[in-house]
Amino acid sequence: MPFTTIEWKNNKVKIIDQTSLPDKLSYIHIETAEEMFDAIKNLKIRGAPAIGIAAAFGLYLGIKDYKTTSFKKFNKKLNETIKYLSGCRSTAHNLFWALARLKDKAEQSKNYPIESIKGALLEEAIKIQMEDSKTCQLIGEKGANLIKDGDSILTHCNAGGLATSGYGTALAVIFKAKEQGKKIKVYVDETRPLLQGARLTCWELLQEKIDVTLICDSMAGEVMKEGKINRVIVGADRIALNGDTANKIGTYSLAVLASFHNIPFYVAAPIPTFDPKIRKGEDIPIEQRDPGEIENFASKRIAPQGVKVYNPAFDVVPNSLITCIITEKKLIYPSYRKNIKKVL
Amino acid sequence: MPFTTIEWKNNKVKIIDQTSLPDKLSYIHIETAEEMFDAIKNLKIRGAPAIGIAAAFGLYLGIKDYKTTSFKKFNKKLNETIKYLSGCRSTAHNLFWALARLKDKAEQSKNYPIESIKGALLEEAIKIQMEDSKTCQLIGEKGANLIKDGDSILTHCNAGGLATSGYGTALAVIFKAKEQGKKIKVYVDETRPLLQGARLTCWELLQEKIDVTLICDSMAGEVMKEGKINRVIVGADRIALNGDTANKIGTYSLAVLASFHNIPFYVAAPIPTFDPKIRKGEDIPIEQRDPGEIENFASKRIAPQGVKVYNPAFDVVPNSLITCIITEKKLIYPSYRKNIKKVL
Repeated sequence: MPFTTIEWKNNKVKIIDQTSLPDKLSYIHIETAEEMFDAIKNLKIRGAPAIGIAAAFGLYLGIKDYKTTSFKKFNKKLNETIKYLSGCRSTAHNLFWALARLKDKAEQSKNYPIESIKGALLEEAIKIQMEDSKTCQLIGEKGANLIKDGDSILTHCNAGGLATSGYGTALAVIFKAKEQGKKIKVYVDETRPLLQGARLTCWELLQEKIDVTLICDSMAGEVMKEGKINRVIVGADRIALNGDTANKIGTYSLAVLASFHNIPFYVAAPIPTFDPKIRKGEDIPIEQRDPGEIENFASKRIAPQGVKVYNPAFDVVPNSLITCIITEKKLIYPSYRKNIKKVL
Repeated sequence: MPFTTIEWKNNKVKIIDQTSLPDKLSYIHIETAEEMFDAIKNLKIRGAPAIGIAAAFGLYLGIKDYKTTSFKKFNKKLNETIKYLSGCRSTAHNLFWALARLKDKAEQSKNYPIESIKGALLEEAIKIQMEDSKTCQLIGEKGANLIKDGDSILTHCNAGGLATSGYGTALAVIFKAKEQGKKIKVYVDETRPLLQGARLTCWELLQEKIDVTLICDSMAGEVMKEGKINRVIVGADRIALNGDTANKIGTYSLAVLASFHNIPFYVAAPIPTFDPKIRKGEDIPIEQRDPGEIENFASKRIAPQGVKVYNPAFDVVPNSLITCIITEKKLIYPSYRKNIKKVL
């Protein structure tokens, strides 16, 4: 990618401030767990895989200056910081997965000096990031097999390089298909309320010189009806063991529309997005966000005072509406419960 | 209604500038056909019935100061002005219907002095407006029979008092049901790109103290899935003889979603919205609007430079997805071709 979404540099985490895109490509340097909490909560960094990486670095930032020689005390501080960072967002499973992975790492290293454990945690965070880059490549390769020359693809929100530390998930499939010489056209839902489609996905696709057309979310049905779309590909924030998939609000509507028009509907996501503790979609916690995201735009009030607002950040697509889940390990088809179990 | 969307006053047309809502309720006074063209084109006044009324007054403004004693010359000027005003928007049938009605009126009065014909045209414009107010009441009454106590209704865009000279069409049904003592809850799609749902419909419903919740367009599927909606009611811009209905972009997606969730989908519209020259939805002309409506918001650029944009202002719901069309004459059920013919 022509940009680096997140990296460890000079003892800080350097991230793109995604709230400034596409106006300007600017970076922020994060030095504390609190700053990382704020960056994730306020979507300066977002996208399930990137949230996982950010949380891992955030956890390291939260414990790196804690002075003790007692593992018990260190572990208490670690758990407090994990609990704190777990509260920044609630749906993306990668957040909890990454924090749990660092917790396991600390446990494994408990007999070493604290400074050595800290080093192991930083190493683990960097490892998560490097694995994610590799994973994106594999998702792209596996998914590109589903794409035909001349395809016109609809995507929602941003499941690109900005949502990962690499190539993206849903967009990785598109990038890889293009590298293979396939001619691809992409329609992008703007993705209200925070416009990640308009601001981020269009920006990424233009950087890669892909033919991209922006539409409002409400136009998805119409472009399908006009025969302009022959595949839908989206990312995921959490996938249940039966394949039910939580993703950015609006994904469920898209899946119903795709089904009505007999258009294949693909979910692209890495294994850490699967939650082995969640059996079905109804059990996935859905983050409710501030009504102000809908009431205001660019500091202009667009809704009348006193109106109620419902602002779920995600919805859940039932497995029956998903044609295939694209992972770094393999393409998973129905029946999902059986086939996901095999892959995990 | 606690406001007057359009009225003839002091030899001018006084309209609410709907682009200023909900910030402020301000009025503009229109004195020429050119000003009316601009007001309609730029959505200072919008909604199919209100566009019809505005066009009728606009036509009168366009000819009232034309000095001649020759009907032939007058008629030429009239036709030129009709042609001009017909170009301001392309989908709402009421626009063409109202202009044609004034043209017929002039033809009927051709043997009278020109000043008398002018007077007859102003009278006809005022008559169209008065009929519309009555029509809204009747649509409300007929439609309210479909609404049950405790219903939770989803609507899109604005088909309220602001879209008519009275009580509205889709919202008339809601207002009337409330007057009948039924407890109603309403969910409103914000309706991108121009946010008529957020800005206008929420504002109108709040004035009438109706329980209203604003959502993004992409959330419609989710609220249906959650069981929060048991009816969808929308307005219409043009209805074909087979019942296929053009309405604000996003209505087609809503109709598919309603069908998927077994939720009744109602269209509320007056007879002038039916186009006797259009047999099926594919033949309805769909206005394409400026990409800037999607690229920018409140003078802030939200899409990256160079992205293509698709911005159809309307889409067409096929008759198979419509449960009932609510008109001032009667409730029209399938089979639509037969039953619409009876009503027209």
